[in-house]
Amino acid sequence: MDEITFAVLGTGGIGRRALEVSQHKDALTPVAACDRHGVAVDFDGLDVDELLAATEGNIDSEPRSGSDKSSGDEPRDNEVATDGGAAAEGGVKQHGEAKGVVASSQARRSEDPIQEIIDHGDRIDAVLLALPNYEHDFIPRTADRFAEGDYSGVMIDVLKRSRVIDMLDDRSESFEDAGITFICGAGATPGLLTGAAALAAQSFVEVTDVDIWWGVGLKSGYEDNRGTVREDIAHLPEYDIETARDLSEAEIEAIIDEHDGAIEFEDMEHADDVLLERAGVCDAEDVEVGGILDVRNDEKPTTTTVRVTGRTFDGETATNTFRLGDETSMEANVNGPALGYLKAGVRRNRAGEYGVFGPADLMPGF
Amino acid sequence: MDEITFAVLGTGGIGRRALEVSQHKDALTPVAACDRHGVAVDFDGLDVDELLAATEGNIDSEPRSGSDKSSGDEPRDNEVATDGGAAAEGGVKQHGEAKGVVASSQARRSEDPIQEIIDHGDRIDAVLLALPNYEHDFIPRTADRFAEGDYSGVMIDVLKRSRVIDMLDDRSESFEDAGITFICGAGATPGLLTGAAALAAQSFVEVTDVDIWWGVGLKSGYEDNRGTVREDIAHLPEYDIETARDLSEAEIEAIIDEHDGAIEFEDMEHADDVLLERAGVCDAEDVEVGGILDVRNDEKPTTTTVRVTGRTFDGETATNTFRLGDETSMEANVNGPALGYLKAGVRRNRAGEYGVFGPADLMPGF
Repeated sequence: MDEITFAVLGTGGIGRRALEVSQHKDALTPVAACDRHGVAVDFDGLDVDELLAATEGNIDSEPRSGSDKSSGDEPRDNEVATDGGAAAEGGVKQHGEAKGVVASSQARRSEDPIQEIIDHGDRIDAVLLALPNYEHDFIPRTADRFAEGDYSGVMIDVLKRSRVIDMLDDRSESFEDAGITFICGAGATPGLLTGAAALAAQSFVEVTDVDIWWGVGLKSGYEDNRGTVREDIAHLPEYDIETARDLSEAEIEAIIDEHDGAIEFEDMEHADDVLLERAGVCDAEDVEVGGILDVRNDEKPTTTTVRVTGRTFDGETATNTFRLGDETSMEANVNGPALGYLKAGVRRNRAGEYGVFGPADLMPGF
Repeated sequence: MDEITFAVLGTGGIGRRALEVSQHKDALTPVAACDRHGVAVDFDGLDVDELLAATEGNIDSEPRSGSDKSSGDEPRDNEVATDGGAAAEGGVKQHGEAKGVVASSQARRSEDPIQEIIDHGDRIDAVLLALPNYEHDFIPRTADRFAEGDYSGVMIDVLKRSRVIDMLDDRSESFEDAGITFICGAGATPGLLTGAAALAAQSFVEVTDVDIWWGVGLKSGYEDNRGTVREDIAHLPEYDIETARDLSEAEIEAIIDEHDGAIEFEDMEHADDVLLERAGVCDAEDVEVGGILDVRNDEKPTTTTVRVTGRTFDGETATNTFRLGDETSMEANVNGPALGYLKAGVRRNRAGEYGVFGPADLMPGF
């Protein structure tokens, strides 16, 4: 397989770590990165070390554009908020006037950074959408812009919500027309764990239960992953995407305090369910996702485990199990798989397979 | 994905179970099966129940053609010995003169059953080679016949030996010229467990160790899997393929007795190592395969486990683990994955990707 060029939209926790992990992957060259302030493009390959160092602690991640905007209206499509990270007003270091990616010498300001990526699309094999999910149609709408802008390549996200898959599925035909291979839910869960469930299902002729249970310890990663924490809070029974989006940082801190720093989630709306169903592994209703997020320890509060229970062709019932080592960080389990699925997507795209694919669709098996 | 037609060469333990498991898979139609005595072809789909019932306990599996032949010369290429099963002279029930697949009303005798499959090749998407491995070039030589016979589709085996992969790799160019997508080592180990190792590796930027440890309890399946037992014995330090091939059934029984029915294997020549290396997951020398075969209990003597240890991008060392439920039989763990990889192979073939692929090559990832 030839060299793969890719772009990252969003330089928050996920975008930054994807760039970092890509340095360990042969044949994978990051050529563009943007956030809402600007864009860096270099087809010889971005200098990832410089970009990460220059933007360290310089992440602008409020759900709305915060100090940039006076009104409460929706973010415009050309505003690339970043995932996670400390808020601009939070007192973290800033490199002069530069905010976000513009702090890098490789980047420049742009009124419409996404359009600049689209305009270079013919030289970009894949686009990783590391965008926030507060507007749950932000990623689908961004994909629309690429389709309308004649981009034909891979688009990949690490989103979690089941409902976003439906919104992407609605666009399947326009992706096919454009020649876009859209890979959705390709992080840790959904993503790595969905793939593990699909693989573990191969022993069975009928899968009766998939139980995904995750543990994340996020003490030192907290500053870099506030977006993820906010999104997880939206999964608590008392909240939803809208109410979580409107929480102030102080309110988030209060919720964390209430839970003594470790929040347990049950029956989450994680897209593993619909992604496994669309791949024919099991019914969505047989998939359960839960976990514990501890923002005061780096050690995982529980071991991330996938249990797949089914019936074998010879009539036995059994459970296959996949466990992640406790020492692997969320960032390691999101970004390695995301880049792996990205490669699988490029292969599909080059073979002329367009439309919407989930992680389980990219696995062998029925 | 459209309907997939497939043929099975060999109707021993693996071939029979593959036919059985395929009945649970939508869009997968078995259209041909053969052994050294005859062939059954039906493009409306074989009646698998009839075929399995008619040939039950009627498996002809001696490494050489046994009672059919008076001399000790090598099997001819057109003799499809079957994998596993009781020997013809072993007193198991026979359906009149019919031996093997010919006992089925769907089958007829043939002087050259493999050639008949090749002659129908334009209507067969995939060929599962469930052939014995005593001549370790039997599968490569059979593949040659398909390539020479202008077959262009998927060929898939569940072989174990590392050295056979090299023999197939030598043929890569002729497969590419013919339009053959050859999937090798796509059973349980290598196969399911190789895929699991490739997936588990996604958390890491460097994999330092892959440890595959299997348990098989084969009491009730013993009669049907003598070929597998013989092949496993060849992995003991005192034996090799040649000496194991020449063992009489009584000698095999004696070896089993010596080990009180449970034989432990260390550092086996299982192709997981070369298959993971060729997929870029790790060095072959960092892969270890061992396990315990118990032919006197159906319960597994040990839990089949894959451990993948590596270093994350953020500097941690950890081990991801994949465990098969003890209640899953070897047959369930071989045949489900084999058919899953078969489907993945057909997708590659239809996309114009030819040559030799291992299970890890069919997974997402780098």
